[in-house]
Amino acid sequence: MSTFPPELAGKLIDGKGIARSLTDRIGREVSSFIEQGNAVPGLAVVLVGNDPASEVYVKNKAIQTHRAGMRSFMHMLPQSTKQEELLELLAQLNANPQIHGILVQLPLPPQIDPVVVTNAIAPHKDVDGLGEVNAGRLSLGIDGLVPCTPLGCLMLLQSVHKDMTGKHAVVIGASSLVGKPMAQLLLKQNCTVSVAHIHTRDTRALAREADILVVATGKHGLVRGDWIKPGATVIDVGITRVPTPEGRTRLVGDVAFEEALPIAGHITPVPGGVGPMTIACLLHNTLQAARVTQGQSKGEAL
Amino acid sequence: MSTFPPELAGKLIDGKGIARSLTDRIGREVSSFIEQGNAVPGLAVVLVGNDPASEVYVKNKAIQTHRAGMRSFMHMLPQSTKQEELLELLAQLNANPQIHGILVQLPLPPQIDPVVVTNAIAPHKDVDGLGEVNAGRLSLGIDGLVPCTPLGCLMLLQSVHKDMTGKHAVVIGASSLVGKPMAQLLLKQNCTVSVAHIHTRDTRALAREADILVVATGKHGLVRGDWIKPGATVIDVGITRVPTPEGRTRLVGDVAFEEALPIAGHITPVPGGVGPMTIACLLHNTLQAARVTQGQSKGEAL
Repeated sequence: MSTFPPELAGKLIDGKGIARSLTDRIGREVSSFIEQGNAVPGLAVVLVGNDPASEVYVKNKAIQTHRAGMRSFMHMLPQSTKQEELLELLAQLNANPQIHGILVQLPLPPQIDPVVVTNAIAPHKDVDGLGEVNAGRLSLGIDGLVPCTPLGCLMLLQSVHKDMTGKHAVVIGASSLVGKPMAQLLLKQNCTVSVAHIHTRDTRALAREADILVVATGKHGLVRGDWIKPGATVIDVGITRVPTPEGRTRLVGDVAFEEALPIAGHITPVPGGVGPMTIACLLHNTLQAARVTQGQSKGEAL
Repeated sequence: MSTFPPELAGKLIDGKGIARSLTDRIGREVSSFIEQGNAVPGLAVVLVGNDPASEVYVKNKAIQTHRAGMRSFMHMLPQSTKQEELLELLAQLNANPQIHGILVQLPLPPQIDPVVVTNAIAPHKDVDGLGEVNAGRLSLGIDGLVPCTPLGCLMLLQSVHKDMTGKHAVVIGASSLVGKPMAQLLLKQNCTVSVAHIHTRDTRALAREADILVVATGKHGLVRGDWIKPGATVIDVGITRVPTPEGRTRLVGDVAFEEALPIAGHITPVPGGVGPMTIACLLHNTLQAARVTQGQSKGEAL
């Protein structure tokens, strides 16, 4: 990232720093949780196949889990794994009392139905929050495990907004992984919430009404400077690798960052914004799952 | 309701007529379902306490279920019923193969937690669609049982819109019973969806942007004529009994109907709009639940 003058740099939401603070706090909470006589929280990560990007993600999750003082279990299965074999493994992990969280890395090979697999994880171990029970709890406002990326976005928003009541939040992108749970979280914060997507007729006009704008489309540079209401808080979930004129590559978000920075009140950079929060929230969810299993209330309310 | 000139009467969405057609069709489908050798679909309705309005609702549900050719089971328990007694009954109903749908009439007495009770109904028998599994399925876009009132609203919308893609739908009211599932259904129809509620700063301005406006607040007359975009479709879920100047009472909705009628493109009256659809959708869900139990796909897609 370039260096910005102080008045612009002050607008940046430092996801990397916030994620590090959260991870440090979780580490301390894990220590005191174990000192109180509870089992060491354990996270099982399951990877099927040899996608290189997925291998990197899974490895990073395992390392950070371990660093936070938790047990990390890795299960790497071949690309040819049958659905029933994966379901058998999940049944074992569901029954294993050393394991409090289970994550199956997506995408899965074509012979495996991700919906069946996701719903085969016991709801109280579903630390990705992607199963139907946790999705329902989020929708109904019942405590449950919230998907990591939108939870991270919420924490970034809470770093700049003490109270979001009455703010108009616009979410661009309506995926089950980010956009839809994000909308639920913002409703719970008493925001007025609008969801735009590929079929929305005038996304720019809707975005311009947003006090809080969350963009999760995977289309790099979609949101231009003139899409943003002056002073709005912008959370950019997108992350795409693009070639530079010098023949190298760099990571960019769904927001045209240089255009948006002078207009937004607060904005997340890419990289260093939402990205680092996702793993930190996975650790948060794993500790929460361990607490619930051992009959403790969760550490903090959202 | 008054009599309107033809150009205004043509704007009315005839919920009563549409519900009657749906109920008739379900009756025919039930007949052929049974003729094909399937069990008679059965609905169990559970009432706890002596609320007179609830007694009327429950009785109407039972009668209409019976008229549609299905079995109707009524369980009326005293106000003093303990939660564990109700859960015991629900376990029996879950296990009873003659029963395909279970509905617990709300509200429940204060000693009973409605969340616990709702989630004690087996998801495939949860014909009110209020449990966490069905809420999650709706949120994730997986087939499931959809709450009756928003499902009825969707059918009324489909009676005037073949395709809602790209329309801006605004839902006023964010309850788990109506507003939130309604927003999910409208997203699934490819609408751009905004949800307003008690904390929304300028509900009128947002409502004026709506091509489709669904109002479910319980505040009679909240939505005035100048809240409505000319030509919009207005679905009024509210139903409140108010006194008339003549010392009688009448039922009114959340929309100031006489003001809205000349401006809206289509509008539901109160009574005779959304109300009759709710029981018709309960019958629809009961037949769907019976079909799923007996391994048939559901009758029609949404």
